[in-house]
Amino acid sequence: MSSIRIRPAAPADAPLILTFIRQLAEYERDPNAVVMTEDQLLRDGFGRDRYFECLIAESNGQPAGFALFFPIYSTWKGRSIHLEDLFVLPEFRKQGIGKALLRRVASIAVERGCARLQWDVLEWNKLALDFYRALGAVTLDEWRIMRVTGAALNALAEPES
Amino acid sequence: MSSIRIRPAAPADAPLILTFIRQLAEYERDPNAVVMTEDQLLRDGFGRDRYFECLIAESNGQPAGFALFFPIYSTWKGRSIHLEDLFVLPEFRKQGIGKALLRRVASIAVERGCARLQWDVLEWNKLALDFYRALGAVTLDEWRIMRVTGAALNALAEPES
Repeated sequence: MSSIRIRPAAPADAPLILTFIRQLAEYERDPNAVVMTEDQLLRDGFGRDRYFECLIAESNGQPAGFALFFPIYSTWKGRSIHLEDLFVLPEFRKQGIGKALLRRVASIAVERGCARLQWDVLEWNKLALDFYRALGAVTLDEWRIMRVTGAALNALAEPES
Repeated sequence: MSSIRIRPAAPADAPLILTFIRQLAEYERDPNAVVMTEDQLLRDGFGRDRYFECLIAESNGQPAGFALFFPIYSTWKGRSIHLEDLFVLPEFRKQGIGKALLRRVASIAVERGCARLQWDVLEWNKLALDFYRALGAVTLDEWRIMRVTGAALNALAEPES
């Protein structure tokens, strides 16, 4: 019987968090997209301005997974939370660790008076979709995410000539 | 020839912002989903803890539209901005006001060292999709937004019995 513990991440967890981020990117078939560094995680998650919060799950004292989230805002419903990453190492799956992490984030959302907890999922990831739907989540099928980045973002930011 | 000015929203703009939010919700065919109030906007946008920032566009001194955004975080790329709402009143369209608002948010993103500017769009809103694509944005076709809210969120937050 495994003992699961969920705790807030500390600065010393930055290398561990980066390992989790890279493994999740590999699972999502885009490992080269990660340009994150330990220093950046330290600055943005544990510095003066906090851009995210992170929880670490341990199974019998071993790091097994993480959840990383931050506040967002709905102009219809108000304060909400976006779950950016939820990941459990393959060897620790099927123990309820992902569910325990998600429940903890949900309880933080409720404590803080948030109207919604939301996240993004790959539409081909049927396992994830089934897992989340069984927990009461719904897919916003009409909506698509748009993004401008890199050179296109810089061009958009330039004053028009 | 109209003169367009973009300025940061002030607390006195809360009633105006709520009007814009309601009109946008009507356009998105979900007007009853808005439970936001002026007090909530004042507290969350202009109080001690800021959950969003807002820009107001004026055309010849008349309020014509708004953009509302907040910081988000990519564990692959770092600090980013989410544009929650971009709206121009019907009678002020075709003057470049939407584009000017988007460009201003993009320039704020670049100034703050953000890797990405992103937002959500209804997949049936071809006008919006074309407008954004012409400005260099791409759709993340593989991704879907998931959400847990209301009673399902409360249930998820409860300790498992």
